[in-house]
Amino acid sequence: MPPLVTLTTDFGTHSPYVAAMKGVLLSLNADLQLLDLTHEIPPQDVRHAAFYLAGCIPYFPSGSIHLVVVDPGVGTDRAILHVAAGGQYLLAPDNGCWTLAAEALTPTPTVRRVTEAHFWRSTVSATFHGRDIFAPVAAYLSLGIEPAALGPCVHHWERQAIPEPSVRATELLGEVVYIDTFGNLLTNLPGEAFLALAAHRLLFTLGQPITPRVVRTYGEAPPGTLIALVSSFGTLEIAVTRGNAAQQIGCGVGTPILVQREERPGGADS
Amino acid sequence: MPPLVTLTTDFGTHSPYVAAMKGVLLSLNADLQLLDLTHEIPPQDVRHAAFYLAGCIPYFPSGSIHLVVVDPGVGTDRAILHVAAGGQYLLAPDNGCWTLAAEALTPTPTVRRVTEAHFWRSTVSATFHGRDIFAPVAAYLSLGIEPAALGPCVHHWERQAIPEPSVRATELLGEVVYIDTFGNLLTNLPGEAFLALAAHRLLFTLGQPITPRVVRTYGEAPPGTLIALVSSFGTLEIAVTRGNAAQQIGCGVGTPILVQREERPGGADS
Amino acid sequence: MPPLVTLTTDFGTHSPYVAAMKGVLLSLNADLQLLDLTHEIPPQDVRHAAFYLAGCIPYFPSGSIHLVVVDPGVGTDRAILHVAAGGQYLLAPDNGCWTLAAEALTPTPTVRRVTEAHFWRSTVSATFHGRDIFAPVAAYLSLGIEPAALGPCVHHWERQAIPEPSVRATELLGEVVYIDTFGNLLTNLPGEAFLALAAHRLLFTLGQPITPRVVRTYGEAPPGTLIALVSSFGTLEIAVTRGNAAQQIGCGVGTPILVQREERPGGADS
Repeated sequence: MPPLVTLTTDFGTHSPYVAAMKGVLLSLNADLQLLDLTHEIPPQDVRHAAFYLAGCIPYFPSGSIHLVVVDPGVGTDRAILHVAAGGQYLLAPDNGCWTLAAEALTPTPTVRRVTEAHFWRSTVSATFHGRDIFAPVAAYLSLGIEPAALGPCVHHWERQAIPEPSVRATELLGEVVYIDTFGNLLTNLPGEAFLALAAHRLLFTLGQPITPRVVRTYGEAPPGTLIALVSSFGTLEIAVTRGNAAQQIGCGVGTPILVQREERPGGADS
Repeated sequence: MPPLVTLTTDFGTHSPYVAAMKGVLLSLNADLQLLDLTHEIPPQDVRHAAFYLAGCIPYFPSGSIHLVVVDPGVGTDRAILHVAAGGQYLLAPDNGCWTLAAEALTPTPTVRRVTEAHFWRSTVSATFHGRDIFAPVAAYLSLGIEPAALGPCVHHWERQAIPEPSVRATELLGEVVYIDTFGNLLTNLPGEAFLALAAHRLLFTLGQPITPRVVRTYGEAPPGTLIALVSSFGTLEIAVTRGNAAQQIGCGVGTPILVQREERPGGADS
Repeated sequence: MPPLVTLTTDFGTHSPYVAAMKGVLLSLNADLQLLDLTHEIPPQDVRHAAFYLAGCIPYFPSGSIHLVVVDPGVGTDRAILHVAAGGQYLLAPDNGCWTLAAEALTPTPTVRRVTEAHFWRSTVSATFHGRDIFAPVAAYLSLGIEPAALGPCVHHWERQAIPEPSVRATELLGEVVYIDTFGNLLTNLPGEAFLALAAHRLLFTLGQPITPRVVRTYGEAPPGTLIALVSSFGTLEIAVTRGNAAQQIGCGVGTPILVQREERPGGADS
């Protein structure tokens, strides 16, 4: 099969930007296999892009070329990077949008700064590098040019990190890092740490005290139940079965979540 | 050509779920031909999915594999089904989302329960069977495994039905079953029964009395006219030429529609 | 590679219309290469479609077949046109949606009226020509039939034009013609004329007086700055760095923009 080139942007498709990139790609290599991932990253939301890519790139086959244009810094001197990680390739701005995905593939990605204008469109606009640099470079990569031809290796870059949770024997403190279409709240609390605690009676605070039922799957609770379980990403998820937890609780990305082992009071005053 | 695998979900593409499925599919069969149908089924709306699939699947070529993940029951003991219907294949949860489409292809689909974990990802999450079961099974089907290898035939399943209208010589009673992007109201009233009545003067009730002009095409009435016509699905449609009938009338899916032959009053008191 | 057939509609994908067209296309030619451009053209917005297509079609390779169904006139006697322009092909309703794109490719497109029902579906609905005429005709084109077989050449058609700005030595008067995902305001004022004026002190009026900083790229101004620059389409763009100009200024498509050379007052009364 011809090489796979995937597209991830925050352009939406009602603007012609995505299609212009597709035209440039196919004009340079009519044989490449184009695949839309999404064009619905919220505008300029690098953190969302990072979570998005970490959640899907690891499933792609070796040799895939992932073109990522979520680029609030276009027109500044931010670099454009080519990343080789675990047999896959990412072409992305140096704003950290790609680092979580690459780290899921390898601890030691090879990162180059894309400097060789030879592979760009002859005129590069100040505002649309997706069309004028990213797309032609991805097309040339799909034609088999060596990444080394794009520019020199670099050893420092912006990183995006999932905020580090605090994990203690009796208490987990983290935050909501993603809300999906169903209103499910994905947190950064590791599933194993949560399961270790879940043998005990727990107190949950998510903006406010909440009392989810701890389950293994959605099916263990009747519709409308607030539940806590380990998500498909291996982290703690708060959901409402056949409902929308985000709306019901009224929280968003960044809301802190605290899970505590309930202290059984005992003694004179109890 | 390599086998066609289509994708229909309620995930939206701003979540990484769709792309994760694409990665799993292409990792197992880099040659398959992936085609997005939609990822904008309203969350968990099985009835919408059923109408959607019935409106498009019948047009696809023999051999197509349709992967459908609109699955509010994920994590319960609902079955995952493989359906062979009229030379096409559907892989869908047992919630009725696929039955209208299959019935449009054949009265006698062959239905299997997907039970053979051999074709699943080695670890199956409790909440994301799209990635862990549906996608790998579809990939193996595209590689040519026999459906019989997936699991045993079953003879009972959930059905989704377009609500049955009441059709009488002087009166049709049904409901709005779909509203499209343009605000056109698609009903479940059969077009022929409507045309038979339409030789007479008609009374329409859609939440309120309405007085559409009966036409054959949008072009017969000036812009802004409320019209009644036979839709591209063969059923009665209420529309506003170059306008939005749903907004203008203020109705939704499920609103009853009554079409009556007007009785010409005659006699002593008239 | 098999021929490329692109799809541009105002259907949205939550309706089955887009997928029904894909099914018809692939049923007639399983080898064609389907590519979604967008299905998010605002309903029946021919002007938006014209701007969209002009912004992307010129980048596609020779031989591409572009199927465009933004067709508020479906069911009237509006024609369906086949356009050959600069080695590419468009199939679109005669409402002007395609003219800006074609004019960007050639001053002399060859335009035919699609009249030969031989290439249509055997039954043509009154309301869904995308499925019943556009899709099968595009499939036959991808199979290699001669455009001349579709119908006769025509020499008159509807045109959509970007509104002509007034360009004078000291003053430019135009309007906002597009607002992208980021809230950037694209105008119809030519970039060179703007740059010629920009050596002077300028007054900008966009509904209200505004005072953008004139820059070459987004990166020259700190986040939150209102800026004026030449867009990737070569026209004047008003933007807010890492912000949303449309929301901040409160204007829309069609809002007039006036750029004037500031007169340095001098003389008795100053």
